[in-house]
Amino acid sequence: MQLPLRGADEVAAAIRRLSIRGAPLIGVAAGYGVALALVRDPDGLDDACATLIAARPTAVNLAHAVDRVRAAALAAPPGEARGAAALDEARALHAEEEASSDAIARHGAALLAGRRRILTHCNTGALAAPGRGTALAVIAELADRGALDLVLACETRPLLQGARLTVYELRRLGIDHALVVDAAAAGLIAAGEVDAVIVGCDRVAANGDVANKVGTYAHALAAAAAGIPFVVAGPCTTIDPDCPTGAAIVIEERDPDEVRAIAGGGAGAEGDRFELAPPGTACRNPAFDVTPGALVTALVTDRGVASPVSPETVRALVSGGTPGAR
Amino acid sequence: MQLPLRGADEVAAAIRRLSIRGAPLIGVAAGYGVALALVRDPDGLDDACATLIAARPTAVNLAHAVDRVRAAALAAPPGEARGAAALDEARALHAEEEASSDAIARHGAALLAGRRRILTHCNTGALAAPGRGTALAVIAELADRGALDLVLACETRPLLQGARLTVYELRRLGIDHALVVDAAAAGLIAAGEVDAVIVGCDRVAANGDVANKVGTYAHALAAAAAGIPFVVAGPCTTIDPDCPTGAAIVIEERDPDEVRAIAGGGAGAEGDRFELAPPGTACRNPAFDVTPGALVTALVTDRGVASPVSPETVRALVSGGTPGAR
Repeated sequence: MQLPLRGADEVAAAIRRLSIRGAPLIGVAAGYGVALALVRDPDGLDDACATLIAARPTAVNLAHAVDRVRAAALAAPPGEARGAAALDEARALHAEEEASSDAIARHGAALLAGRRRILTHCNTGALAAPGRGTALAVIAELADRGALDLVLACETRPLLQGARLTVYELRRLGIDHALVVDAAAAGLIAAGEVDAVIVGCDRVAANGDVANKVGTYAHALAAAAAGIPFVVAGPCTTIDPDCPTGAAIVIEERDPDEVRAIAGGGAGAEGDRFELAPPGTACRNPAFDVTPGALVTALVTDRGVASPVSPETVRALVSGGTPGAR
Repeated sequence: MQLPLRGADEVAAAIRRLSIRGAPLIGVAAGYGVALALVRDPDGLDDACATLIAARPTAVNLAHAVDRVRAAALAAPPGEARGAAALDEARALHAEEEASSDAIARHGAALLAGRRRILTHCNTGALAAPGRGTALAVIAELADRGALDLVLACETRPLLQGARLTVYELRRLGIDHALVVDAAAAGLIAAGEVDAVIVGCDRVAANGDVANKVGTYAHALAAAAAGIPFVVAGPCTTIDPDCPTGAAIVIEERDPDEVRAIAGGGAGAEGDRFELAPPGTACRNPAFDVTPGALVTALVTDRGVASPVSPETVRALVSGGTPGAR
């Protein structure tokens, strides 16, 4: 499917309504959005960048990408050169994220060798990230190595990215899988049916606390109680050194209608709508939750693995080395 | 809504398809089912009892109620007296369950005094039990006492008893509430937005392990991590002294179609169907999970409260006293 986007405002809107989703992909798209803004209206660059950054409050890649592409553009002489510089930088970011996905897959597959039944949450594959994705890239790499028996995919209410996207990707990859409701994960983990949990991340604080799709934290608690690894995978750009702990991460509260009703699949689809609760029912709809770093067995990035997850091991990843990490 | 049931087989079918649901209500309905069987075909009594007991494997009230009403009938002389004795016993059971609901409400409200924001799971009110129900009876009692600010109701995938039934009951009771996806509960608990969790139970083992609607265990883990009470409410008949621990509880695995698609609401409704995942997607669909007694702050029954929950305090409840319990 192609999604023609003609300006930074349209890119921001696509990010807001989740037509573009997954932290790394949001970053790359926003980078191209900055380039688009420069070509169409150089004077509106600051406004365009602010609009892009505001599209999703929780993903840190978004602000990183916008700032980076903007800085590259402003380093060029005024005029058409700026648009070209922005486009070059967005393309470089895109290529880096693809290489990052491959590195994550390799590091994660080495870490999870021997864990043949994996549970995952939300969608973290090629539909969510450049390249093969993050957590799902690790799963695909394990499958390539013949080291995987079954993936349990959580449906990921309210927007069902697991049921709609991850199941699609797993089928396409030829990986045996079973779909479960999010609430079933903890019991299946306790019953010994899962060897490891692996998820992506939307933002990692400097101390290793992880903001990810709502539902992640409960899986981490269950994994810890059962003594199986709980692994978080994402590019190093997902780590926010300026965010000291998870308590400082802004959790996006989304439209209550996502909880009250299920809308038809596909970007921009309209009409199809299935009411789950009486119309007007009050809802809370946080899009993410925070998993304390202490519950994360390993943080798998393109630059290596932090394990255990601590301010020191996270700092080492960000600064490029991997001391204390494998 | 009325549901005309003309024999034990129809009662069993209504229990299987969840037109009659909630452990205490299943027990009462099955009791009447035994009486119906005797009136219609006294020679088929044993088969009818077996069919009723097999309708749901996890709820212990079901077998208790069937055995009790059958025994009362067989104590009467053969002939019409047996049907009358069965009906009397089913009515007695029904009345006891209503009184039990009131007692649970009183004990639970005393225990939770000062806890003004309560999270609950599944449906445990008047639609699930005789009288005012179990956990929802406690919530209603707290509201009657002006001791409640907000109820967070988990939607309870896959069958959405929270979104469809609990929200309806809370609205009818005039209690402020917000619906959340099951996966949001743990994060909201960790964020300090919940003062206590209260749920019902389908079966309690002799050591206090609790089988309840799938999703319960994750809420218990989150409550323990946050240091808030995790309370289980149910009649003493839900305790199964013959079941040593949760590991011995058979967890019902239901139709994968419940996970793949959402069917229209209402008993017996047909046609309406909303696909969530690609047709034919493999699913796991355990209907319950087991929460270790060590995670249960208090077990609230009609006979009093066991807290902490241990083999000793549970045994005390079953034997009628409440030593070591409040």
